[in-house]
Amino acid sequence: MENSHKHAHAKVEWIEIPVRVRYADTDRMGIIYYGTYPVYFEIARTEFMRKKGFTYRELEEVGYHLVVVGMDLKYYNSATYDDLLIVKTSIPNWQSRGMTFHYEIYKDKSLIVEGHTKHICVTSNRKPIIIPPRLLAILKDVSPK
Amino acid sequence: MENSHKHAHAKVEWIEIPVRVRYADTDRMGIIYYGTYPVYFEIARTEFMRKKGFTYRELEEVGYHLVVVGMDLKYYNSATYDDLLIVKTSIPNWQSRGMTFHYEIYKDKSLIVEGHTKHICVTSNRKPIIIPPRLLAILKDVSPK
Amino acid sequence: MENSHKHAHAKVEWIEIPVRVRYADTDRMGIIYYGTYPVYFEIARTEFMRKKGFTYRELEEVGYHLVVVGMDLKYYNSATYDDLLIVKTSIPNWQSRGMTFHYEIYKDKSLIVEGHTKHICVTSNRKPIIIPPRLLAILKDVSPK
Amino acid sequence: MENSHKHAHAKVEWIEIPVRVRYADTDRMGIIYYGTYPVYFEIARTEFMRKKGFTYRELEEVGYHLVVVGMDLKYYNSATYDDLLIVKTSIPNWQSRGMTFHYEIYKDKSLIVEGHTKHICVTSNRKPIIIPPRLLAILKDVSPK
Repeated sequence: MENSHKHAHAKVEWIEIPVRVRYADTDRMGIIYYGTYPVYFEIARTEFMRKKGFTYRELEEVGYHLVVVGMDLKYYNSATYDDLLIVKTSIPNWQSRGMTFHYEIYKDKSLIVEGHTKHICVTSNRKPIIIPPRLLAILKDVSPK
Repeated sequence: MENSHKHAHAKVEWIEIPVRVRYADTDRMGIIYYGTYPVYFEIARTEFMRKKGFTYRELEEVGYHLVVVGMDLKYYNSATYDDLLIVKTSIPNWQSRGMTFHYEIYKDKSLIVEGHTKHICVTSNRKPIIIPPRLLAILKDVSPK
Repeated sequence: MENSHKHAHAKVEWIEIPVRVRYADTDRMGIIYYGTYPVYFEIARTEFMRKKGFTYRELEEVGYHLVVVGMDLKYYNSATYDDLLIVKTSIPNWQSRGMTFHYEIYKDKSLIVEGHTKHICVTSNRKPIIIPPRLLAILKDVSPK
Repeated sequence: MENSHKHAHAKVEWIEIPVRVRYADTDRMGIIYYGTYPVYFEIARTEFMRKKGFTYRELEEVGYHLVVVGMDLKYYNSATYDDLLIVKTSIPNWQSRGMTFHYEIYKDKSLIVEGHTKHICVTSNRKPIIIPPRLLAILKDVSPK
């Protein structure tokens, strides 16, 4: 009962990150280059973890990496230089050895890009391992900070 | 009969593009940054069209764009600075208003990344249109060059 | 008298911008790629103008560009993923048709990179022009905001 | 006599590298983003060394890096997507602990960007050292390949 409640809660927990579009992010079509969005996803993951109370940098320093094994994106609309975007991030899906991040990028409350990145946890020599329980507990914790 | 033969031929027609990994393409994990691969896809599309006998630049100059509306990637393995990758590109799927490109990236004959980009044809003011018949004929042509 | 005072004041006026290093900004040496710093300069210019009370985006929308005609950088030290850098920006030098921006990038109060970008003002068809007086007045204004 | 001859020869020895401009390299001004050129310089350095008979990758694998300590660029003209540029590279200046690369980037025989990068040789723990004599001999060798 408690579990299912926590699960339901986890599913809806979003964290929001502002991202200001750089001139470098655009291309000659006048809008954000389609290959820029994975960078915004990365920023959002970094800030998601920081808001949870630890940093991905620390995770790497103790010898773990969350390598990307898959990504998908849908492009609904565009944005350009100096737009202030909002990236909403959540982790809708957990496995013992990895997780999926979900991202929604908004401009003026309009959804412009949506996507997922799928990760597995590996050691510094690229061997897949079970996510360290302490990390799992922190990331899954949805209590207010 | 002729048609189905052409269709089958089209499905297997690959074009191969070499890409040398730049130092800028890597990240501090020592390998290619996951957000670099969409750039390799873009290069492959450009060269795919050039090998077909026209250029995407010309397409833009007459007022058309093949904007990306979706992308997916699977990361099987990694590569690093100075590796000479091969990007195999095909168009497995056509609609009247768009197409899907398929990419396979190889390092030493081993598949490291696979993905698709889905495009629609738009005018300069972003209005979706039917792909110009001349363009469609050129892209679909699988006769040897 | 008043003029020389304003000039002296202008010379020392710095604006400080925080920049969080992205994973994408690093390379396989484990540090920020040397070609990333021009992007940090660009962000600093954008925020410099915003703090002055207008945006570079607005400038482009009325048909002007401050194109870069020269850049120099000195690299004293390095930084890496997740470092929170401070970019100090000023305009030490004005001409009627352009200006020079100066940048100092700090990590934990230690100077890691220093540089300049030199710009000229052009119209949308790349013709050099005198900087619009209103823009000049705003950028030169060093009164506290 | 022999020395001064070699020196004079070295001064004029250029190596030329073609670089095709990617869509990702452009910005919303419709031209190559000013921060893209350092990447072209990097490609040119890599190919310069390869043409000399060794690779920068090998140099890193034996524990050396040629870190950038300075860079300057002059922007004379612009280029855009799909342009085929030529980067001319030489090493006009040597010290026992470093060297300067010079670059000229051409579009249709017209010089669009010129610049230099200054490097020092360091070990994997960032300690400056004298350039290994074998490397120095190879890089300075201007005999035809």
